Amino acid sequence: VSVFTSITAEQAASWLKPYSLGTLLSCEGISAGVQNSNFFLSTTHGVYVLTIFEQLTHNELPFYVNLMAHLARHGIPCPTPLADGDGDYLGELGGKPAIVVSRLPGNSLDKPNAAHCAAVGRMLAELHIAAQPYPAQQKHQRDAAWCRATAVQIEAFLNPDELVLLRKELRYQARYRPHDLPRGIIHADLFRDNVLFDGDQLSGLLDFYFAGVDDWLFDIAVTVNDWCSLDDGALDAEKSRALLGAYHAKRPLSASERIAWPTMLRAAALRFWLSRLADFHRPRTGNLVSRRDPTQYRTILEARIAAGKTQPWLAAARRGS
Amino acid sequence: VSVFTSITAEQAASWLKPYSLGTLLSCEGISAGVQNSNFFLSTTHGVYVLTIFEQLTHNELPFYVNLMAHLARHGIPCPTPLADGDGDYLGELGGKPAIVVSRLPGNSLDKPNAAHCAAVGRMLAELHIAAQPYPAQQKHQRDAAWCRATAVQIEAFLNPDELVLLRKELRYQARYRPHDLPRGIIHADLFRDNVLFDGDQLSGLLDFYFAGVDDWLFDIAVTVNDWCSLDDGALDAEKSRALLGAYHAKRPLSASERIAWPTMLRAAALRFWLSRLADFHRPRTGNLVSRRDPTQYRTILEARIAAGKTQPWLAAARRGS
Repeated sequence: VSVFTSITAEQAASWLKPYSLGTLLSCEGISAGVQNSNFFLSTTHGVYVLTIFEQLTHNELPFYVNLMAHLARHGIPCPTPLADGDGDYLGELGGKPAIVVSRLPGNSLDKPNAAHCAAVGRMLAELHIAAQPYPAQQKHQRDAAWCRATAVQIEAFLNPDELVLLRKELRYQARYRPHDLPRGIIHADLFRDNVLFDGDQLSGLLDFYFAGVDDWLFDIAVTVNDWCSLDDGALDAEKSRALLGAYHAKRPLSASERIAWPTMLRAAALRFWLSRLADFHRPRTGNLVSRRDPTQYRTILEARIAAGKTQPWLAAARRGS
Repeated sequence: VSVFTSITAEQAASWLKPYSLGTLLSCEGISAGVQNSNFFLSTTHGVYVLTIFEQLTHNELPFYVNLMAHLARHGIPCPTPLADGDGDYLGELGGKPAIVVSRLPGNSLDKPNAAHCAAVGRMLAELHIAAQPYPAQQKHQRDAAWCRATAVQIEAFLNPDELVLLRKELRYQARYRPHDLPRGIIHADLFRDNVLFDGDQLSGLLDFYFAGVDDWLFDIAVTVNDWCSLDDGALDAEKSRALLGAYHAKRPLSASERIAWPTMLRAAALRFWLSRLADFHRPRTGNLVSRRDPTQYRTILEARIAAGKTQPWLAAARRGS
């Protein structure tokens, strides 16, 4: 169980007092979080999730917490922060910032089918649209500039093949990634383990703590790379067509976005290859819990480069417009 | 199906456009509302409830709609209003005010047991506490003054026995109902059909359109009269003890509230006897849909009067304090 902070039932019960959430029945650590400690709090009213933040600070959190409240208000099925008696979302537990959010029904899928991918694509477009009126703007922290800075820090750990691949891709991105694509708040980490399905119904989007302003297309590319990659790193044509088509039906992709798509898939693969390399080689500054194999995203990056510029789902998106 | 306004699937689909709630799959009238028309909207995201207001106006609605949003934010399981792209809850459909709210799980219970009554009592206390920081204040519309005014209007329709009972009770209330009880926003209509249970878990409170500021104790009395009355109008001792005890555990009743309890049970019975008499004799100005038998609440009022001032559950509340 990847919980950093442990709490007693007494601490949890006392924490709950200023809330209108009933009386605590039980408190159980959850293994899901990587930057936070999460607990299921079962009360006489229902089940809630208590999140204790291990890395984000009191100053950084309002952007994310208010974003979740905003999105929930607009019907996006994301965890809703619950306010205490003073109307505040953010509290403190054991000297760390903490919040209580609603628990969403459903489970994440390891092997989604094309219909699941379509549901994710449609919801991602809804998320982009619903986030537009959100007043606070904060840049996506793991953007192209972060990729360049992180590359410098981890180059020393790479073998010659990796170094060539990394430098070539950074050059390619600097040259070909457009600077004028439609932007807005993106989730930036919509992997399968951050999406819940209740039966065939998409029932939840989780973990908004990477969210920030960047190209919408980047968010789609992050999502497609995780949901639609085959074991060899290549794209599953049916699933990526389903995801992209459903997104496009809700927010039509512009001509410049369609042209940029192969480049953006590479940008998204690069970002996760880099963060996994950094977690692997510099574990103290990165993800403390699950050191994922960096080669998975190297394989995906190489597959996207190899796929070049003719993509069957692009034609599908064009036909759909 | 008690739906006044009928809408087409095209109207519902077009209504949904400014929301991030997916694409409409189906639209179905619901029989629950009495002052509103309600529809289940099934979309690619889930199921929502569309409410079209038949009586409340655009000026009157923000108090209720923002109250539901406030309570949901504090963890009370009530319908959450969903905002459109402009961030507004209230819209217009067919010239009438309308909102979309979340659908809550569960069903209402016709024959609750003592554990269900305890859950309702506990939640009612949570509701009173959670509503305290709500900034808007509006008086409960069916308060003691409304009772006096309505009595004048329906006296002409009553038989001599009813007239004596009504006048005596109005005199009794004027003399003995205290003016200094703890007050706040009350639900004012927490009948069994406004509470949902999902298994044994209380999963929803519905219909906040009678809510307003009045004595908290009045809200408890309205609830006990509906949840804990036997067929002859007398109180079920076990159920009323459970409801009151659970409420008291969350918000302890004051000494003056305990003394006022028998009087308040009569006040709550009077209020519903009067509204049912008014609906029955003046159907055009009252509830257009379900004309409930007024004699049920006359029976309850007579039973409360007969029960006098020694109440077993009062002793229980005292012991619990």
